[in-house]
Amino acid sequence: MIGEVPNVEVGQEYRTRRLAHEAGVHRPLQAGICGTMRTGAESIVVSGGYKDDEDYGDVIVYTGHGGQDSAGNQVSNQSLDDPGNAALVTSHLEGLPVRVLRGWQSESPYAPRTGYRYDGLYRVTSYGSKLGIDGHLVWQFRLEAYDDTPMPEVPQQQEIPATSSATASSGDVPAVHGNELPERVTSTVQRIVRSSAVKRQVKAWHDNRCQICDLRIEMPGGSYSEGAHIQALGSPHNGPDTPGNVLCLCPNCHVMFDNGAIVLGDDLSVIRGGGAAGMLRIDPRHAIDLECVRKHRKRWRL
Amino acid sequence: MIGEVPNVEVGQEYRTRRLAHEAGVHRPLQAGICGTMRTGAESIVVSGGYKDDEDYGDVIVYTGHGGQDSAGNQVSNQSLDDPGNAALVTSHLEGLPVRVLRGWQSESPYAPRTGYRYDGLYRVTSYGSKLGIDGHLVWQFRLEAYDDTPMPEVPQQQEIPATSSATASSGDVPAVHGNELPERVTSTVQRIVRSSAVKRQVKAWHDNRCQICDLRIEMPGGSYSEGAHIQALGSPHNGPDTPGNVLCLCPNCHVMFDNGAIVLGDDLSVIRGGGAAGMLRIDPRHAIDLECVRKHRKRWRL
Repeated sequence: MIGEVPNVEVGQEYRTRRLAHEAGVHRPLQAGICGTMRTGAESIVVSGGYKDDEDYGDVIVYTGHGGQDSAGNQVSNQSLDDPGNAALVTSHLEGLPVRVLRGWQSESPYAPRTGYRYDGLYRVTSYGSKLGIDGHLVWQFRLEAYDDTPMPEVPQQQEIPATSSATASSGDVPAVHGNELPERVTSTVQRIVRSSAVKRQVKAWHDNRCQICDLRIEMPGGSYSEGAHIQALGSPHNGPDTPGNVLCLCPNCHVMFDNGAIVLGDDLSVIRGGGAAGMLRIDPRHAIDLECVRKHRKRWRL
Repeated sequence: MIGEVPNVEVGQEYRTRRLAHEAGVHRPLQAGICGTMRTGAESIVVSGGYKDDEDYGDVIVYTGHGGQDSAGNQVSNQSLDDPGNAALVTSHLEGLPVRVLRGWQSESPYAPRTGYRYDGLYRVTSYGSKLGIDGHLVWQFRLEAYDDTPMPEVPQQQEIPATSSATASSGDVPAVHGNELPERVTSTVQRIVRSSAVKRQVKAWHDNRCQICDLRIEMPGGSYSEGAHIQALGSPHNGPDTPGNVLCLCPNCHVMFDNGAIVLGDDLSVIRGGGAAGMLRIDPRHAIDLECVRKHRKRWRL
């Protein structure tokens, strides 16, 4: 289950991993990443197991899985072949939301003091490898909170150093591990187009191959394409969110199609600037809605 | 001036267009769109001059300029050659923010009762033509509020129909033109990558031609490219926001570069999957930061 879990609110706390498991928020009892390369990552737990992690509240730099011995020391390189890491790459390429939980073990100021807390949906905005603190290669994933995901709460410090001359009243902004809270980090622009279920279906039928130019973009973690609505959703276009109104396109054909540099004829011919330029590649499972094709063409006066 | 005007807050009201002009929020005294094809649109005023307009608060369907006689009747087709309309196309292609003002003349429930109100920054997420209510072609631009732009206020109705049996207390949700408030409209995904000043400079040097594959995407309103950071901003990559760390790329090469399917050698050779594949096209005005090139390559273990 990708995305929100019904009846679970952001900020919900779980005393144990088993309770989070039973709620369906994070299903594995031990693994930090739940998901597969095919489906993407459902959820992750930030719980201090990897010392290269960074936590800014609305931005998390999350270290992938693997390469540790049973005592938790990093003793070898991590790999994108690890199913959890591959799941996070898929979440990135598909623009899918990931549920984030924080656990008490994390040293982050945003971690709960006890148990585990569900902190809402994040997206994977980039990833890459680096030499970790322990001298082995780690893969790291940058997760950013969606704009409507609230900033996680910082638990009040309960022990105020006795030597401090300033008296902290509980209503003040809490001191956090002796430091200021990091400033809210400015988001980088999201380059990946989020795939809805309808778009994922269409992309799967076409195996990520562009229906206009036939390109399939191959990347380290898998292939990439975008689901493009023929008639845009919302006013003034009001297209339906159905497979018949979605094409599987490469980013270049997508931006051209969305801006009228490419339209389709009623026979599904591809029309660019001057005239026809081949045919849309079709698949028998994917019936194109010709009414949408016509309205898109009219939008561009063609 | 694109974006926010210093010292002007969202919700600021102006009794007259001249006062809005003096504040620098919307500079023309009559025109509804301020801007040019080259710079994009600085600001627009939603003031009821075009009956095809729609206003949902955080989403506005804004009719372009032109085709009206002096009495305000639509008597001919609108054109993208109109400088105001061309400015809004540029705002769309560049992902630039547009200041939105609402005027008392608009019949929208979100319009102020008197004068003009600055309602914050919106982006142009799509546009297209349609046959307008008066039977002539109009161009329409969908504007969506940024996530941090507050929903505009709905003024209280001051005249409660005397025949109404229900007594409305002023603290209640106001009735709006006899109807319910429209629900907050779900945003469509933003396909266009927002250009910062640094990115715009790099794209201008390269005239929107991809430095990797040499493609320049031509669209009805102009050409299109994307500014791509070599080393991503923010943790864990922490690249600088300087021209030396930005490339001008087409969307396909951008997504491949961001995901390690393309890296650059120290000699600016283009390295794909197996090996070298030509050289990055350079421009004498645009010095590439080799330190960033190296760090990007290392991120992908190459």
